[in-house]
This record gives sequence, C-alpha cells and structure tokens, in this order.
Amino acid sequence: MDTTDLIKQIEFIKEIDKLKYIQRRTRLFNSDRNENDAEHSWHLAMMAIILSQHSNTPIDVLKVVKMVLIHDIVEIDAGDTFIYDTAKNHVNTADERLAAERIFGLLPKEQADDLIAIWEEFEAGETDEAKFAKSMDRLEPLLQNVSNNGGTWKEYDVDYKKVYEKKQIIKNGSVSIWDYAEKLIEESVANGILKKL
Amino acid sequence: MDTTDLIKQIEFIKEIDKLKYIQRRTRLFNSDRNENDAEHSWHLAMMAIILSQHSNTPIDVLKVVKMVLIHDIVEIDAGDTFIYDTAKNHVNTADERLAAERIFGLLPKEQADDLIAIWEEFEAGETDEAKFAKSMDRLEPLLQNVSNNGGTWKEYDVDYKKVYEKKQIIKNGSVSIWDYAEKLIEESVANGILKKL
Repeated sequence: MDTTDLIKQIEFIKEIDKLKYIQRRTRLFNSDRNENDAEHSWHLAMMAIILSQHSNTPIDVLKVVKMVLIHDIVEIDAGDTFIYDTAKNHVNTADERLAAERIFGLLPKEQADDLIAIWEEFEAGETDEAKFAKSMDRLEPLLQNVSNNGGTWKEYDVDYKKVYEKKQIIKNGSVSIWDYAEKLIEESVANGILKKL
Repeated sequence: MDTTDLIKQIEFIKEIDKLKYIQRRTRLFNSDRNENDAEHSWHLAMMAIILSQHSNTPIDVLKVVKMVLIHDIVEIDAGDTFIYDTAKNHVNTADERLAAERIFGLLPKEQADDLIAIWEEFEAGETDEAKFAKSMDRLEPLLQNVSNNGGTWKEYDVDYKKVYEKKQIIKNGSVSIWDYAEKLIEESVANGILKKL
C-alpha cells in the first residue's frame, strides 16, 4: 500500500471534522437547534439514496451521494451562505474555489482533482446527477421549514415568491418531487406560515 | 410516479432527523463537544469513499457508504451503546432489531427490506463490504481519541488491551490501515495517553 497516500488522506479526514462546526440558518425538524453542515450532508445523502427512483433520468447514485457529502466542505473556509441572502450570491465564489483547492488539496493529487471536479459539477448544476443532488439540497430545508411552523421564512421575512423561485430548481431533478414540493409551498401559504404578498 | 411511495419516503426522511440527537461518548477532533450519530455517519461515509483503495479486497463502495450512513439509525429507538461497555454487548440486540423494523418499516416494503438486509449485513460483519465498513467505524474514534489527548480512553478508564482487542477488527477490512492504526495505538501508550498495565 501507499503510506504516503494514507497519511495525506488521514489529514483530510481530520480537517473535514470542522464541517460539524458550520452552522446553517435552518433548524432541525421540530427543534430550535440549528443544523450543522455535516448533519445536513448526511441527511441529503440518505435522501439521495431513498428518493433516487424519482429522478427524471437514470442517475449514478454513488456520484450523487459523493456530491451531497462534499458539497458544503468549502464552507469550512468560506462560511455558510444563506440562500435568501440578497447581498451575497451563492455561485461558486472565488473564496469557495480557494477553499476547495486548499481542503481537497490535502488529498493525493488524483483524488483531490477527482473531488474538485465532482464539486464543480455539482455547482454548475448541469448534469443529471448535479440536478438531482440540487433537488435534494432544496428539498430538505423546505421540509424543515414546514415542520418548524415557517422556520427561516418567518425568521428572515422570506415570502412565497422568493421561496417558489428558489425551490422550483427541484423540478430539474425530479418532476414528481417538485409536484409534492409545490403542494407543500401552497399549503404553507394556506396555513399562514408563508406569506404571499 | 408512485405518490404512495413518496409519502412514505418523506415520513422516513423526517423520522431519521432524530439521529442528530443521539449523542456518542466520543468527542469531535480537538473539541469538548460530543459527536452525534448523524455527524459520525457522515464522517464514516467520507472515510469509506476516501480510503476505499486500501480495502483488502475490491468492494462495492456504494454499498459500504449505505452501510455506514444507516448503521446507527436503530439507535433512534435503541440508544447508543458504548463500545467499551462491559454490561451491554453491542451485537444486534432484540431492541435494535425492533427499531430496524419500525424505522425502516416506514419506507415502501421493498426498500425497507433492502435497507434492513444491508444493516444486518453490516452487523454480521462477514462480507467484504461489511468488514470495510466496520474498519471505518473503528478507525474514526481512534483518530478522535488520539487527537483529544486520550479522549474516552481516559474518561472511561479504558486500557491498551481493551483498545487493541476492539481495534484489531480494522485488519479484517484493511491490513494497511491496521498497520497505521496499530502504530497510533503504540504511540498513544508511549505518549502516556493510553495506559498499558
């Protein structure tokens, strides 16, 4: 075996522990505690495995799982960006690119290149796998906000139009999950936990 | 699409959020905060992907990832069992079996059966995938205790002999990772963070 590879890999494994400290705005289901990025990534991986049958196209599930497991690792350096933050646009910023190079760069070169490519594929959102992975990333906080009586929508004064605009990306990965999500959004308006101006 | 399937799957996805509340004895790297089962499962999935080249045999990485992502879900009902607990033996107890049936049973039948089978395969530890998954499950807390100046070894008065006995299971999944782990254990004794009677 290649001991040099293993030593590098262990350094990476220790470094990414920091993902457990990155707090998201969204809260756990039925809870006041904020979710962290590691918990969020685990949940998306479970969702990708459980929901893969609903993808619009056949997908490589392992690749989707890799995408969602690593998609927020750059936030160890670059910090979490709230999806409804109007000042900061969450589109592969220069900070995130540097973070990817530093953190994945701890790994053996070939493995680093491979994971950076998978992260970039996720960010670009153009392949079938990236579309499905992004559906999962949009669906989880929707479920959380519905179960938390409005959650971040209420807390940060986000209205129907913004939610609908951000969430319809789910459709690119799965029309059937979008049908479900759309109903949840409409019900949230009807139940008074999401305001429609 | 099958709406009935999706409704069941969403119920399961909500239910497993509870894994984020299950506290482990071990603490995060360089931290005083305990790790929870969801964070732990995410970390093992990352390790399985990163370290798969070191497996003694070729393995189905997606299956290993599924194993480690779901391996602790039964603890939502059955609670965490500390590996050095002498009173309670962590071998697929009746409580865990009931938990698996209830929690995975929220899913459509075929999917529930599939995940219960994967969980049982992990618990039995006989296939190549289960052996490698168990290596990951033993390696993570070893790395944590080393980086935490003895961590749970000191806190719960666990000695070299017990650690060596529990950790050598790593060898069944990867001889090369075991070589590394064995050195870490010996170094821990030399550094005074693990006592050898």
